[in-house]
Amino acid sequence: MAVPTTQKGVTFYESNGALKYEEIKVPTPRADEILINIKYSGVCHTDLHAWKGDWPLPVKFDPYCVGGHEGAGVVVAMGENVKGWKLGDYAGIKWLNGSCMNCEECELSNESNCPEADLSGYTHDGSFQQYATGLAVQAAHIPKPKEGSEWYGKDDAYLAEIAPILCAGITVFKALKSSECAPGQWVAISGAAGGLGSLAVQYAKAMGFRVIGIDGGEGKEDLFKKCGGEIFIDFTKEKDIPAAIVKATNGGAHGVISVSAAESAISQATHYVRTNGTIVLVGLPANAYCKSNVFDQVVKSYKIVGSYVGNRADTREALDFFERGLVRSPIKIVGLTELPRVFEEMAAGKILGRYVVDTTK
Amino acid sequence: MAVPTTQKGVTFYESNGALKYEEIKVPTPRADEILINIKYSGVCHTDLHAWKGDWPLPVKFDPYCVGGHEGAGVVVAMGENVKGWKLGDYAGIKWLNGSCMNCEECELSNESNCPEADLSGYTHDGSFQQYATGLAVQAAHIPKPKEGSEWYGKDDAYLAEIAPILCAGITVFKALKSSECAPGQWVAISGAAGGLGSLAVQYAKAMGFRVIGIDGGEGKEDLFKKCGGEIFIDFTKEKDIPAAIVKATNGGAHGVISVSAAESAISQATHYVRTNGTIVLVGLPANAYCKSNVFDQVVKSYKIVGSYVGNRADTREALDFFERGLVRSPIKIVGLTELPRVFEEMAAGKILGRYVVDTTK
Amino acid sequence: MAVPTTQKGVTFYESNGALKYEEIKVPTPRADEILINIKYSGVCHTDLHAWKGDWPLPVKFDPYCVGGHEGAGVVVAMGENVKGWKLGDYAGIKWLNGSCMNCEECELSNESNCPEADLSGYTHDGSFQQYATGLAVQAAHIPKPKEGSEWYGKDDAYLAEIAPILCAGITVFKALKSSECAPGQWVAISGAAGGLGSLAVQYAKAMGFRVIGIDGGEGKEDLFKKCGGEIFIDFTKEKDIPAAIVKATNGGAHGVISVSAAESAISQATHYVRTNGTIVLVGLPANAYCKSNVFDQVVKSYKIVGSYVGNRADTREALDFFERGLVRSPIKIVGLTELPRVFEEMAAGKILGRYVVDTTK
Amino acid sequence: MAVPTTQKGVTFYESNGALKYEEIKVPTPRADEILINIKYSGVCHTDLHAWKGDWPLPVKFDPYCVGGHEGAGVVVAMGENVKGWKLGDYAGIKWLNGSCMNCEECELSNESNCPEADLSGYTHDGSFQQYATGLAVQAAHIPKPKEGSEWYGKDDAYLAEIAPILCAGITVFKALKSSECAPGQWVAISGAAGGLGSLAVQYAKAMGFRVIGIDGGEGKEDLFKKCGGEIFIDFTKEKDIPAAIVKATNGGAHGVISVSAAESAISQATHYVRTNGTIVLVGLPANAYCKSNVFDQVVKSYKIVGSYVGNRADTREALDFFERGLVRSPIKIVGLTELPRVFEEMAAGKILGRYVVDTTK
Repeated sequence: MAVPTTQKGVTFYESNGALKYEEIKVPTPRADEILINIKYSGVCHTDLHAWKGDWPLPVKFDPYCVGGHEGAGVVVAMGENVKGWKLGDYAGIKWLNGSCMNCEECELSNESNCPEADLSGYTHDGSFQQYATGLAVQAAHIPKPKEGSEWYGKDDAYLAEIAPILCAGITVFKALKSSECAPGQWVAISGAAGGLGSLAVQYAKAMGFRVIGIDGGEGKEDLFKKCGGEIFIDFTKEKDIPAAIVKATNGGAHGVISVSAAESAISQATHYVRTNGTIVLVGLPANAYCKSNVFDQVVKSYKIVGSYVGNRADTREALDFFERGLVRSPIKIVGLTELPRVFEEMAAGKILGRYVVDTTK
Repeated sequence: MAVPTTQKGVTFYESNGALKYEEIKVPTPRADEILINIKYSGVCHTDLHAWKGDWPLPVKFDPYCVGGHEGAGVVVAMGENVKGWKLGDYAGIKWLNGSCMNCEECELSNESNCPEADLSGYTHDGSFQQYATGLAVQAAHIPKPKEGSEWYGKDDAYLAEIAPILCAGITVFKALKSSECAPGQWVAISGAAGGLGSLAVQYAKAMGFRVIGIDGGEGKEDLFKKCGGEIFIDFTKEKDIPAAIVKATNGGAHGVISVSAAESAISQATHYVRTNGTIVLVGLPANAYCKSNVFDQVVKSYKIVGSYVGNRADTREALDFFERGLVRSPIKIVGLTELPRVFEEMAAGKILGRYVVDTTK
Repeated sequence: MAVPTTQKGVTFYESNGALKYEEIKVPTPRADEILINIKYSGVCHTDLHAWKGDWPLPVKFDPYCVGGHEGAGVVVAMGENVKGWKLGDYAGIKWLNGSCMNCEECELSNESNCPEADLSGYTHDGSFQQYATGLAVQAAHIPKPKEGSEWYGKDDAYLAEIAPILCAGITVFKALKSSECAPGQWVAISGAAGGLGSLAVQYAKAMGFRVIGIDGGEGKEDLFKKCGGEIFIDFTKEKDIPAAIVKATNGGAHGVISVSAAESAISQATHYVRTNGTIVLVGLPANAYCKSNVFDQVVKSYKIVGSYVGNRADTREALDFFERGLVRSPIKIVGLTELPRVFEEMAAGKILGRYVVDTTK
Repeated sequence: MAVPTTQKGVTFYESNGALKYEEIKVPTPRADEILINIKYSGVCHTDLHAWKGDWPLPVKFDPYCVGGHEGAGVVVAMGENVKGWKLGDYAGIKWLNGSCMNCEECELSNESNCPEADLSGYTHDGSFQQYATGLAVQAAHIPKPKEGSEWYGKDDAYLAEIAPILCAGITVFKALKSSECAPGQWVAISGAAGGLGSLAVQYAKAMGFRVIGIDGGEGKEDLFKKCGGEIFIDFTKEKDIPAAIVKATNGGAHGVISVSAAESAISQATHYVRTNGTIVLVGLPANAYCKSNVFDQVVKSYKIVGSYVGNRADTREALDFFERGLVRSPIKIVGLTELPRVFEEMAAGKILGRYVVDTTK
């Protein structure tokens, strides 16, 4: 494949600086990297944080930074030491672009916890460009749609819709695994009709769990049920949410996936988790605390577990569920040139669902 | 064995009422119970709560209550449906006297979490009497000292010293299991030189863990080292405890056993637990909360786990470690008649180590 | 409820002796037992072994034995120490009628492995009678059909169809758990269209597994697909079964449930199990051996696991899947009087599907 | 560090060909490799197989092959993409020199099961030379002896003795983990006084297990006890080995580590493993089969597990136990020039303990 030397991308040269759609150099993969021709990239709230620079971790500028960490595309070049990939494979850029692969966490397949994690769109130019590099051992292997799959022959739409799975999907899938629930058990999802939540409901259903959702507002229950949810608790109507959940699940939820950013919602889970159950913290609200009553936690023996983004195996599996048609992500496709407008809408809190940018436009 | 119809015991007829050493009826075991001739019983802080009635759960009075839940003795009678016991066996009364054996928690061997738990010295007359009943399937099987054991031929001293293991020992053993640490990993024990703590250090050592202890005051480090601890952090001297632990363990403790009742010490553990490690809450302080920073817990992916008293398998195993001589409990033996004085000392916070009452005196 | 003193049951007085439909005494529950008015009982191959007496374990005769271990009915009386049950509850007689509840295995909820296991229709009169006793802590809690369930209001049909779940269903459900597969992984079921196999396919599907089945003969593939199976390997057509499975699953099955009784089929699984996968042995063929090549098993690091009948939690969960309508068992109902004829057919190998006897006829 | 361009090594140019101690090129590390100045290398039976070429997998010749896969030394050069290493670090060459790091097995930290495993001294020049390359992410991180360690200040002896840990030690440590035993449980080791066995006993002891060993011959029991073993079964004296083990362990061993190569010894373990216990296959005898009785395995619900060499975390941990002085390996040091003689002795079955070659001699 002929790889050009320059390309289009959206850059910024300082925190909160102008977002420029401009001609930039195509990066050269190192010996251990692959080069991916990004077709589509999802836009995530984290991209906004990266641009604003309001997280403690410094963003790289050399002199610019290219954001984006949900990029789906095609392998067009590979470093000389790369194994397990071939040109033409579908590949994805995830939040974790690379890690040291040598520390205690990497040894145990917990690469996202590596202290030297290299982050796409943050410490490594990301997927808001046409060509992006990724460490070969971390880039996502996106399966080609197999015959029989509803995606077979629709590769373009497939790559567009799989983009948000590369961050949001993997994250909720990993959180569901961290709940250590068994098929047939109850999983409560707080924020069940939101972006992460509606993906979580679909994955939970596909994993054989029974899903009880908490959310509020018009149309939320319908969406929840369409995703496979079983019981919906509307917080705009229900006075005693914990009691309602304990009753509906005959004792409390075996697992709770807390994708909500509200501190009160997080700690509320301690009142409806089942004895010996597990609460999974998965969102990243700034300065929020989870509080549990010690006496209560000991006597009920429940767990509170932090779950970050999934590892490579979680990635492979989460993508496999998608390819099999068990999970869908509602997206709106716009051109890469429109990214600044998308950021504006996102900052204003006006976005429902997920924007995906087409890097050719 | 001839079982008398009356016996000596210490009773109280209302919360905070007089503690009477008096002649009371020997209870008759139900079809599913055994009757144990209690030789020795440990005295635990929980006994003080039962007597004071300052916990939410009501104490039974019919018309009196006999406290005590660390009783070691000999089986002298059995109900007709009892299996697995014979007269003359050594048996122990634990905090959990019985449970429904029919609920979801009991089915999974989590009997201590049974909503109908029957508690010794609280909802069931306990071990501060010469003869006590226990549900046959819950009473502790105390192994007879085997030839080669340091306890062989010293049965009397053995029963006295094993008494505190029946509550304190089992509880810390279960907590160590709940840490899910592997041999060779670091376990931090906060309150390492106290009653629960020093037992925890010994069990941890016997389980192949490396132990780092936090405590303060004279003689504490010596006791800790004698119990098998490796690194001692003296909180009266160390300014930055989390930093000291992270450094000493090269990244933080894989497991933390928090036997401390202080809220600040509990939450401090979130700063020195290792990435993907586990904090085990095991004490029962009233009205204390455990607080964790959500962002931090997600990124470090650590767990906070409540651990209550151990189940029957934990009991069998914890006692086995004791019989093998791997764990010792420092006790002071007094007559049952002296129990009121022991309660006074305990209420005044004057007790070091563990009192054990001899029911024959 | 009025419980009669005599009832109808099918007895035999010696191994291979005449099967008599006769009037016998209604048993009296012990203090720890419940008495169940059996409505329906499944007929299983094990009942044939019990009657023939061709297993090493002696059958009880006092002077007769009543077979049957898949009995569904209603609680009509309870011993004085029973907890967790009330009159009118639906209850089931399983293969494991009772266990010591005191040994190492019972402590860990592995009651079926108890050395003193009391077996229904074998060492304890079983479900081929109108009233049978069961240890309260072991009898199956059959949930009443909830509103919204397809079984709601159809209690009679429900009890008939749930009967075979009490042995066959629980057994395959437990085997699937023992495979330690995760949702989305491949489970191969050899003998997939037989009695146990078709239940296994349905449970596997409900647990989120992908199912590949091996069986042969007309109509088998259709049945398999109707049960939720994905890929069918017809052993009457496929020359190289292991190769076909490895190809279809892209590397081998993560779990293999071997319900086949043929020694060759059992060992064949070692050739199509995935690296680090698990083969579950679940059938009980007489004198069969499982052979694995040591070099191969080490390098592929797979496991071979024996799985017996499920415990109480497995029972509760397996019944819950049934009540939710995720699993169906194809049955043929006949009167209890016809049991001798059913045994004849079974001995002649003429039975397809499962016979269930109605104890009122 | 100055790295020469040529070095001494022992080569062979065809299977069973002459072993030449000669001047060869120092290899250049790839971008993802480190170059290690090997100080000492253990000699293992596998080296003999590599030289003889009697295993199915082809050995690399380009034109020669350098054997050895237990090499301990110092990092002297690194490729440009290497992370987590610095010059002067101690590093080890293991059997697994590298893997694809991209497949399903590598993703899950099961690199030794990678279908493209690159094997030291077999498909990659090994440690019987002064300078060897290893994939940076797979080479063993050998800890420097810390102050307080018995090895502190004795680095040379340390590197010599740690060499055999790099294969034999890691392998038995991983096998013990695969047994899923808990501290306090019984592990039976068949072949307990041999090379692998005596390491296994020491690791088992350090992990808190109780060890029962099976072996025979003079001095074996003494060695076993010195390694920390508790009960020794001498197969030259004991008639009924399974019965003796079941009795000594009060029910059978929770875990069995079968390092024996004899088929009969392997299958014998099925008779003394505890109910719900685990047999770990770890040796690689040619053409041997493990046979289990299906009925028995189901009713006792035990597992048979294949365990290959450990992964990177196992390696780090196994080396840590060694550095802490909990495990010793009896070695005999000779010069690299003497390797041909060592091979001769080994082929003749005359070796007791482990030879280690000093690459400077």
